[in-house]
Amino acid sequence: MKPDDPITHLISAFARLPGIGERTASRLAFFVMNQPGDLVDDLSEALQRVKVEVGFCERCSNLTKGTLCQICEDTKRDPATICVVESTPDLRAIERTGEFRGTYHVLHGLISPLEGIGPDDLKVRELLARFGTDSEVKEVILATSPSVDGEATALYLARLLKPLGVNVSRIASGIPIGGELEYADKVTLSRAIMQRRVF
Amino acid sequence: MKPDDPITHLISAFARLPGIGERTASRLAFFVMNQPGDLVDDLSEALQRVKVEVGFCERCSNLTKGTLCQICEDTKRDPATICVVESTPDLRAIERTGEFRGTYHVLHGLISPLEGIGPDDLKVRELLARFGTDSEVKEVILATSPSVDGEATALYLARLLKPLGVNVSRIASGIPIGGELEYADKVTLSRAIMQRRVF
Repeated sequence: MKPDDPITHLISAFARLPGIGERTASRLAFFVMNQPGDLVDDLSEALQRVKVEVGFCERCSNLTKGTLCQICEDTKRDPATICVVESTPDLRAIERTGEFRGTYHVLHGLISPLEGIGPDDLKVRELLARFGTDSEVKEVILATSPSVDGEATALYLARLLKPLGVNVSRIASGIPIGGELEYADKVTLSRAIMQRRVF
Repeated sequence: MKPDDPITHLISAFARLPGIGERTASRLAFFVMNQPGDLVDDLSEALQRVKVEVGFCERCSNLTKGTLCQICEDTKRDPATICVVESTPDLRAIERTGEFRGTYHVLHGLISPLEGIGPDDLKVRELLARFGTDSEVKEVILATSPSVDGEATALYLARLLKPLGVNVSRIASGIPIGGELEYADKVTLSRAIMQRRVF
């Protein structure tokens, strides 16, 4: 049901975006309406472009313009290591560190029994498809967040992948660099002690 | 210059909205891209609709679908009082109080010498056009914000309108209802004392 009034329609369309309530949506709508036509055109063109031009990378399910994403196409990246992430923003965050030279696999979500999201709703099948007979993959780094759903997803994938004879690892949890012990929450602190490494 | 990459294009289009930085823009873009097509379509359709369907009310410059806005068309509204506001959101805020039964005039901005915005950039000519020979207008309430630009605009309009033989008033400034004297800023407090009313 689309609202009959175009202003109400735009406000409610903006309000569907995450973190944008009725009030902000209304502010955005009036801002857009008071701009010369170019912002409206630019935004609606950009929206249509992502719809038409952007799809999933055939190999890693990253968002991409072509059939393979820039990372999968880059011959300098090491195909022997796959870093499994929840989402494209997480992939971008890791890319920004400049530390990782392997490839990725984007799940587009986490297993969440409470929200009724199972492995079939994620790009898990596509991940398994990367372990064919001619597979070069030697290690899978499970880089989902250390949240309840992130841990559950990592555990699920670890059990699935280990029998395939591949090394499975998990990103480290602990006190953030620059963080203060005093203010770390109990769970993080106890995890940091448990997973201490030899100096 | 439109970015070649559709994802970058959408992010930079979102980032043109007020209060939305690069990071939020990127979050919105990835949210939109991970939704089934309907949100993209809904938002871009809503944008195009406001562009095509929404224009200025011929009388009061409020945003409207038709030639006259709902308020100007409403015969139960009193055309003898015009409340002058900076923007449509300000008009909506006054409407929400349910206290005002007159009509409006929307300036779409404030006079701001610092930003190079003069009366000709606002709907001032349209306001003056409402004081023809058969004008029913008896009072103009200047309801711009009590900010520097808002006060300057009110002063400018008052000087322009008074010679036309119309009553010109200004909304009250003072301590907000529910606010505490202790925390009121100096200017507001001194204004509240100066403009005290007989009890």
